[in-house]
Amino acid sequence: MLSQIVTEGSLAIDATAGNGNDTLFLAGLVGETGQVWAFDIQKQAIENTRRRLTEAGMLHRVRLIHGGHEEIDRFVPQKVHAVLFNLGYLPGGDTGIVTVPETTVKALEKSRELLWPGGILCLAVYWGHPGGKEEKEAVEGWAAQLSPYAWDVEKISFPNRNIAPFVMVIQKKCLEA
Amino acid sequence: MLSQIVTEGSLAIDATAGNGNDTLFLAGLVGETGQVWAFDIQKQAIENTRRRLTEAGMLHRVRLIHGGHEEIDRFVPQKVHAVLFNLGYLPGGDTGIVTVPETTVKALEKSRELLWPGGILCLAVYWGHPGGKEEKEAVEGWAAQLSPYAWDVEKISFPNRNIAPFVMVIQKKCLEA
Repeated sequence: MLSQIVTEGSLAIDATAGNGNDTLFLAGLVGETGQVWAFDIQKQAIENTRRRLTEAGMLHRVRLIHGGHEEIDRFVPQKVHAVLFNLGYLPGGDTGIVTVPETTVKALEKSRELLWPGGILCLAVYWGHPGGKEEKEAVEGWAAQLSPYAWDVEKISFPNRNIAPFVMVIQKKCLEA
Repeated sequence: MLSQIVTEGSLAIDATAGNGNDTLFLAGLVGETGQVWAFDIQKQAIENTRRRLTEAGMLHRVRLIHGGHEEIDRFVPQKVHAVLFNLGYLPGGDTGIVTVPETTVKALEKSRELLWPGGILCLAVYWGHPGGKEEKEAVEGWAAQLSPYAWDVEKISFPNRNIAPFVMVIQKKCLEA
């Protein structure tokens, strides 16, 4: 789905760079004429991402920002086609450093305002850590109150797995119905 | 997804023929060498489906059964690749005639036993009618208790729409993990 919306020349944000998987994926999609912004509050995540982008020869397509994604609007001066979030902790990293409801919801709200019509927010929500349930509920509550006339919200979950992560895809409608 | 699993020569079941949309779709996928069984407790649904299949020249690919899907195993003598359910009421039909938890869960359980490894159950759950919430909960409870080692269960829901239908895709794993 992302690869239909994020294409050559697109602008996109990885709000949680982590190990750089999603940043690399987005950098590939936007091509030489597009731009990606990647945020992370962990220095290690920014370094990991920088290394992977360098190896792939795509570092010039990405602006790496060592800072919180709740300040996304300070760094991104334009409307974008997609914003990705991996909420929870950095896989393989310090599980004591996690995203938290207050900044997450602030970042989601700012991301929403940055989207072009037709653009999408993609959230992967990991919530099996202390505080994860509160963040899950904050994210679900935020998504549920989005106007169905302006936003398509789809949640993909795995009901027979215990505390499984879930995915939300939130698309800004092209025309309000 | 269905069209990757249900192909020429496949066997499939439409557990709720309704207006025949899904039956027609399955009959197209299974081709001349496959077979579809379509159930409905409403005479009108069976007639609607028969007419649509006849118009499409595919009636010979489908066995129409005017009866409850909880008896699915009496009519289908073989393992199948897919079983489709539209739970709730017949769109455009009598909203007083609805599927109910007892027979639905029985039918789901029997369908599950009829699946080949790799085969899928697809459920569209409409629950905005009296009794709908109970059926929704029965279906969710049934799906949640399926072993994650033997079944992949995915739920697709629309959290910002009021009492929106949701979809479940339940796939029997090829190998138990």
